[in-house]
Amino acid sequence: MLPPVNLRPPFNITRASHVVLHVADLARSRDFYVNIAGLVVSEQTDSVCYLRGLAEACHHSLVLIQSNGEATCKRIGMRVFFDEDLDLACQFFQARNLPAEWAEVPHQGRTLHVSDPAGTKIELCARMETRPRLHLKREIFTGAQAQSLDHFQLLATDAFALCGFYGELGFRSSEYLASGDKLLGSFMYRKGTVLDLAIIGGQGPRLHHVAYLVPGVEQIFAACDLAGNYGMADCVERGPGRHGPGGVLFIYLRDPDGHRIELFTDHYRTIDIEIEPVRWEAASLSTRAHWGLPAPARWYFEATNFEGVPVVDPAVRPNPETLESYAQKLSAQN
Amino acid sequence: MLPPVNLRPPFNITRASHVVLHVADLARSRDFYVNIAGLVVSEQTDSVCYLRGLAEACHHSLVLIQSNGEATCKRIGMRVFFDEDLDLACQFFQARNLPAEWAEVPHQGRTLHVSDPAGTKIELCARMETRPRLHLKREIFTGAQAQSLDHFQLLATDAFALCGFYGELGFRSSEYLASGDKLLGSFMYRKGTVLDLAIIGGQGPRLHHVAYLVPGVEQIFAACDLAGNYGMADCVERGPGRHGPGGVLFIYLRDPDGHRIELFTDHYRTIDIEIEPVRWEAASLSTRAHWGLPAPARWYFEATNFEGVPVVDPAVRPNPETLESYAQKLSAQN
Amino acid sequence: MLPPVNLRPPFNITRASHVVLHVADLARSRDFYVNIAGLVVSEQTDSVCYLRGLAEACHHSLVLIQSNGEATCKRIGMRVFFDEDLDLACQFFQARNLPAEWAEVPHQGRTLHVSDPAGTKIELCARMETRPRLHLKREIFTGAQAQSLDHFQLLATDAFALCGFYGELGFRSSEYLASGDKLLGSFMYRKGTVLDLAIIGGQGPRLHHVAYLVPGVEQIFAACDLAGNYGMADCVERGPGRHGPGGVLFIYLRDPDGHRIELFTDHYRTIDIEIEPVRWEAASLSTRAHWGLPAPARWYFEATNFEGVPVVDPAVRPNPETLESYAQKLSAQN
Amino acid sequence: MLPPVNLRPPFNITRASHVVLHVADLARSRDFYVNIAGLVVSEQTDSVCYLRGLAEACHHSLVLIQSNGEATCKRIGMRVFFDEDLDLACQFFQARNLPAEWAEVPHQGRTLHVSDPAGTKIELCARMETRPRLHLKREIFTGAQAQSLDHFQLLATDAFALCGFYGELGFRSSEYLASGDKLLGSFMYRKGTVLDLAIIGGQGPRLHHVAYLVPGVEQIFAACDLAGNYGMADCVERGPGRHGPGGVLFIYLRDPDGHRIELFTDHYRTIDIEIEPVRWEAASLSTRAHWGLPAPARWYFEATNFEGVPVVDPAVRPNPETLESYAQKLSAQN
Repeated sequence: MLPPVNLRPPFNITRASHVVLHVADLARSRDFYVNIAGLVVSEQTDSVCYLRGLAEACHHSLVLIQSNGEATCKRIGMRVFFDEDLDLACQFFQARNLPAEWAEVPHQGRTLHVSDPAGTKIELCARMETRPRLHLKREIFTGAQAQSLDHFQLLATDAFALCGFYGELGFRSSEYLASGDKLLGSFMYRKGTVLDLAIIGGQGPRLHHVAYLVPGVEQIFAACDLAGNYGMADCVERGPGRHGPGGVLFIYLRDPDGHRIELFTDHYRTIDIEIEPVRWEAASLSTRAHWGLPAPARWYFEATNFEGVPVVDPAVRPNPETLESYAQKLSAQN
Repeated sequence: MLPPVNLRPPFNITRASHVVLHVADLARSRDFYVNIAGLVVSEQTDSVCYLRGLAEACHHSLVLIQSNGEATCKRIGMRVFFDEDLDLACQFFQARNLPAEWAEVPHQGRTLHVSDPAGTKIELCARMETRPRLHLKREIFTGAQAQSLDHFQLLATDAFALCGFYGELGFRSSEYLASGDKLLGSFMYRKGTVLDLAIIGGQGPRLHHVAYLVPGVEQIFAACDLAGNYGMADCVERGPGRHGPGGVLFIYLRDPDGHRIELFTDHYRTIDIEIEPVRWEAASLSTRAHWGLPAPARWYFEATNFEGVPVVDPAVRPNPETLESYAQKLSAQN
Repeated sequence: MLPPVNLRPPFNITRASHVVLHVADLARSRDFYVNIAGLVVSEQTDSVCYLRGLAEACHHSLVLIQSNGEATCKRIGMRVFFDEDLDLACQFFQARNLPAEWAEVPHQGRTLHVSDPAGTKIELCARMETRPRLHLKREIFTGAQAQSLDHFQLLATDAFALCGFYGELGFRSSEYLASGDKLLGSFMYRKGTVLDLAIIGGQGPRLHHVAYLVPGVEQIFAACDLAGNYGMADCVERGPGRHGPGGVLFIYLRDPDGHRIELFTDHYRTIDIEIEPVRWEAASLSTRAHWGLPAPARWYFEATNFEGVPVVDPAVRPNPETLESYAQKLSAQN
Repeated sequence: MLPPVNLRPPFNITRASHVVLHVADLARSRDFYVNIAGLVVSEQTDSVCYLRGLAEACHHSLVLIQSNGEATCKRIGMRVFFDEDLDLACQFFQARNLPAEWAEVPHQGRTLHVSDPAGTKIELCARMETRPRLHLKREIFTGAQAQSLDHFQLLATDAFALCGFYGELGFRSSEYLASGDKLLGSFMYRKGTVLDLAIIGGQGPRLHHVAYLVPGVEQIFAACDLAGNYGMADCVERGPGRHGPGGVLFIYLRDPDGHRIELFTDHYRTIDIEIEPVRWEAASLSTRAHWGLPAPARWYFEATNFEGVPVVDPAVRPNPETLESYAQKLSAQN
């Protein structure tokens, strides 16, 4: 059902690390991430703002870049363990005829720009400048007290193929969605939690969301309340609710440019190779396995494009139960 | 805007006390209230089950009665301070030509059955058998750990008139909804919190919901999770969310007979007479003042009839924004 | 065991309202109450600072007055329901030959200064200026997010006698400590919660502590963490722990002048007259009925004097188990 | 200051896995771990009980063995990634003339029994039988809802030497305690969190405690409350409090045989090699860096012996501030 995993991958990706987003109004976006998500600013210039979670020791997990209008994702970033892993990665991507170029990136060590077969733009590095963790510095806490970037969710035209690619790089699945023998999506991890990368079928390659860990359910509501207080109630797109796969509590917010972030509470640890991935039946693509309303259509179909990367429709467009279709059924009953 | 309040009422109602509901399957309803809401059974026979919240010292706040099919509310119960208040109440209702009859009710002291001008069936008593509070007995906690019955919400054909009646009985408003100079509803209290009785315009008299206090937001989610685990995910009707008026976190559940309960976190204290009620503009009838989805139409329009009491439509049927109308707008945008 | 209660008291005290404290350094004390407890400043001058809890609509529950050195309590404040209750109170105290004088107090309605038979200095008023409640304004939350002043604890040379006095004023006991037939202390209430006034035997009259309600256990720890972060770790005097009587979670802090505040989570509701007070045996004076360390001796024996009021030792000095005596026993076992 | 770390260790230990303890009364100990910590029983016979945390997929993280009286630790267990790592481990230990023997252990794959240079008895395995994770099955939750075994703390006669040994095995330090140039102890990890193994100087080798992760601060108090309710209040040895190193909230309990467990809330993630370990000055050995009481002497000096392994005193006996010495200072001030 799931593509094979290489438990001895050619180089060692350790975790989801950071994301670089274009935004239309740098100050407004920074305020959103500071006041609602609770990130802290590590450094800021006229054109770029570097933020990190309260418990992060690395310089940035979110980089906002002032754009000329387009709201794309420049790159998602992943960490490798050793500097040498970058050279091995370069060889690997070149051998596949995939883009792989060295780049100079401020506050990061040697950085390699690559694209996966779906076109997802990724940067790999082994080192970053460090900053003190601030997770105990309560007097500066804001927003939902986001602790650390946890994972990305990608929409992929061919989810099975892309899961296979990341399987070659040592990503294992903790839980996955399937309809009969068709894989709809999978939660894949490197760092020993439920996921670093969710790959879900859809028009791709696109970035569906970036997820930050928050301390508890109280902070899930804090994000919503603050969104309301700051006049941005409409940014609350979905939730609060309980996920099927992974089982965490979540809220999804849209930032001022429409980039989606998830704030969620902690999930279980993985690591051991004998544990079988958990299968969720197709019906679960409605994503409300336990209780709660389905997500609105825009949660399923809207996502952030990667800069300069064309998107391709899947062979079969997903047809999940949405808030809209659910409400229509309710109306029919009234 | 609000009808006058008699600060020296003819008798002293102290608080919302209990509710008596007809249910189609006693065991199934008991399981719902024990396993999901977290009430404890004080006593049970073949035809009736008495339950109370963990922090309640009185014998029952919820009485379930095996019915022959109809799912009505027999009565809502309120407490008066002294036994003498019952006699004063009897005189008051009789003087108004309102029903007032003495009744024998197990586990309660002298009990008076009355109806308000809208036809709401109420019982008043000054005493009840007591039981130990169990709020520290963690080893028996279940469900959402409901602590105590807090308030009732009534639908009233003429909300202004009914608020006026309860104002005569000393109920004061903490917060209210209005559209221009039309009162849409009000939160009225006796016990020094935000409310004992919410009176909202609509087809009435009906019982919209009974609200129990839970310890915190964690228990709001516990109720939802348990509903899902026990195969009753559909009983989660609305929420979790944050109220406009009152500002508490809430979830609304429908019990197996469709009776609605709210579980919510604590609200502020009232008491002082110089504090002005908080006004919410009509737009708030959509009930999502801060953030979140509108309630589904059934939350607005479905409620529990009182046994044998005909209902009357209001002059103007409320036309709130509903989940259905909101979703339709979303669909139009897609 | 407990002195009688007059359920139809001569005037209607509704709740514990506010406290007026002398402090050596106004700015430092304000910072303590804002940054650690989480109160908000309603108004401030060179010599006085008025604070209130986030959920309070009245102008002040804590008044800090710049002193010339002494760290006394000027008065504790209680609210009465009607203005007329002030006149009835005046008559009552005068009839007992107890001090009763009218006073002009900023931001308050007509105010009556009285002393109880133990000498406790009290002020009564029926009205106060109002301010918006801020309990939903998350973006200004600080410290432990104290919601509202809840109760006072007094040390009384003759606890039984003083409980009797407050019983005449309609204060009822929810829980009490006794050793055989000797009353050691009692939790007395007016507002329908566990207490407005705790009266405990000891050198008196002194103010043992003022208690503020906080939203949950998370805020109990926030207070401690912030005390540590602001270089005031030593102000954490006792806890976090679980009370015997009342059963709430608590922390006790000493402010920069040594005035003690308790931050605690919500307790159950009282009101009904048929409920018997809960008795705790003398052993509980050690105050660790459920689990946890005994309080240090200073928690038992240190308290705030009332301005100009001499203190009197009780006939028998209390001899509770203290942290010190407990640790000595531990040492002996090592 | 810290001994070197081999980032390419000879075999791959992935995480702290399980612990095997002798207990005097199997039923009583099981009840302790189920009712207070909240573990679930995976399997039980007359002489052995296997337990796991709610979020664990492996058969056991705690094995209780009915003993003939001695309350020792049989072994602590660690996981390796591949089966081949076991062979590499065997070679490694044999090359060092350290004990290394193959063992048959129920519910585990091939298992290797080894001892580190301090004599700590360890078992390594690469596989275990699996069971469903129960972290969403709220209806069976008990106690503090312990999620998963997180780490062990060892007392070592020569902490520096033992940290050096584990450094060779790829364990890195997240935080450490030092006095001048003397290492007092270190938190070492493999699984990408703050620690899998704490090594602290003292009479060793002994097991100081086993730590389980709990969902939040509410569960820290639940453990205490339940200990009290089950008549075991004295098992609460230290806390609730906030750690210096690591910064988590904690409680320490002693099980019926005196084995110590810690329940704590989640900590930050590590992983990246450029992040410097955090140094805590010697004064912190008092372990109350932020606020709170020092631990009692028994917390510092009592621990569980390994079966059949003699203990050795350190060159210099630690002399931390204890609850006892702190209370003595308080007494002197009274």
